Amino acid sequence: MRFPSSIALRAASVVCMAVAGLSALLWQSKMLPGLTFKPVLATAKPAAINPVNGAAYTPTYSEEGDLLPPLQYREWIYLTSGLDMSYTPRTAAQGDMSMFDNVFVNPEAYHGFLATGRWPDKTVFVLESRNAANKGSINKAGHFQSGGVMGLELHVKDEARFPGKWAFFDVASETKATLFPQTAACYSCHASHAAVDTTFVQFYPTLLPIAQKQSAFSPAYLKDSAEEQHK
Amino acid sequence: MRFPSSIALRAASVVCMAVAGLSALLWQSKMLPGLTFKPVLATAKPAAINPVNGAAYTPTYSEEGDLLPPLQYREWIYLTSGLDMSYTPRTAAQGDMSMFDNVFVNPEAYHGFLATGRWPDKTVFVLESRNAANKGSINKAGHFQSGGVMGLELHVKDEARFPGKWAFFDVASETKATLFPQTAACYSCHASHAAVDTTFVQFYPTLLPIAQKQSAFSPAYLKDSAEEQHK
Repeated sequence: MRFPSSIALRAASVVCMAVAGLSALLWQSKMLPGLTFKPVLATAKPAAINPVNGAAYTPTYSEEGDLLPPLQYREWIYLTSGLDMSYTPRTAAQGDMSMFDNVFVNPEAYHGFLATGRWPDKTVFVLESRNAANKGSINKAGHFQSGGVMGLELHVKDEARFPGKWAFFDVASETKATLFPQTAACYSCHASHAAVDTTFVQFYPTLLPIAQKQSAFSPAYLKDSAEEQHK
Repeated sequence: MRFPSSIALRAASVVCMAVAGLSALLWQSKMLPGLTFKPVLATAKPAAINPVNGAAYTPTYSEEGDLLPPLQYREWIYLTSGLDMSYTPRTAAQGDMSMFDNVFVNPEAYHGFLATGRWPDKTVFVLESRNAANKGSINKAGHFQSGGVMGLELHVKDEARFPGKWAFFDVASETKATLFPQTAACYSCHASHAAVDTTFVQFYPTLLPIAQKQSAFSPAYLKDSAEEQHK
């Protein structure tokens, strides 16, 4: 994906969404309504690197530490969507702009989670943002997803490579995702509030019952939940 | 899925959502916050009927004309989500209740569409509705999906079986989806406004460019679009 230098900003400051399973520095970086993230079939070169026909994706890094993004993520397992999720109340400065977040995970990790309530090594989450349109075609109320990808971020479990086992990446192009430094707010927020192994399983309706059954909740999440119940 | 007799109604009258690619008689039938639609792995019997390990789903009907639902749809290809989409303006009677719709399609049909801009025979869409929660865990603004499935409907292409090639079904249980009669508003609305072959591809951001490139738009949609531009 190419992001031109002229971009509209959702918020003036860097914010960490910390929801939908991925920490996100979404709104500050790229807002390009016309951007189209082509399905893998239409992008011959990346498809050749990350084959989609049943082959598993394995995180692969450049010498600089950049990650080759999984362009086939739209054929992965869908976990959930949110609209304008935020851990701070909405402010007037945000205006009328609305955004959907869609969360995907690689199939191997999903099946591992179904069986155990835990994420295996090499789990990869993708958080995709798209514009939430309101009026269009026959739609007169509510919101629908429209246009190209507005942001794309990854949450990667690579136990041997990262302190804390996981890392966040921002997809800068079809062939490059750059690492968020370990000091970014995403890491501490996910560690402090995510339900399972730094992932926001509390927002994934099909996985939450499995995590509960498997007693996979993090101590931090159990603490949060207990405090919430006492409010 | 079991739907108890005591159910809260979103709207008093039958409404056809006609969005997100499926006509929907969503809100009038089943609103059960606690309902959990278990992943296929947890439902041994249906999984045996509809194997998920790479096997394609083929619509299978009972003697009464009911359809065996594809319980593995959460492992199918995700197309989009909407929030409170409607082709009529929102009314006060709808109150504060919000609902997400998630749309899935079987992988074989998706790959066929990527290649041709057309839906092959035996295409199956699934429209899943889930409650849109607002406050919970660390979320303070916007909406996230929470709880079990609130509604599940199918749009099935079976050229030899149905007049107009397609039919709509309402999933009543894990083993039974009942046919919407051809007189239901869904059929005429999809025929009159859907972008491609009675499906609302105009709301599927990854597929719309493909339909355009392949000149797959329906005459009805081209007429709608032309009228919209002249407004």
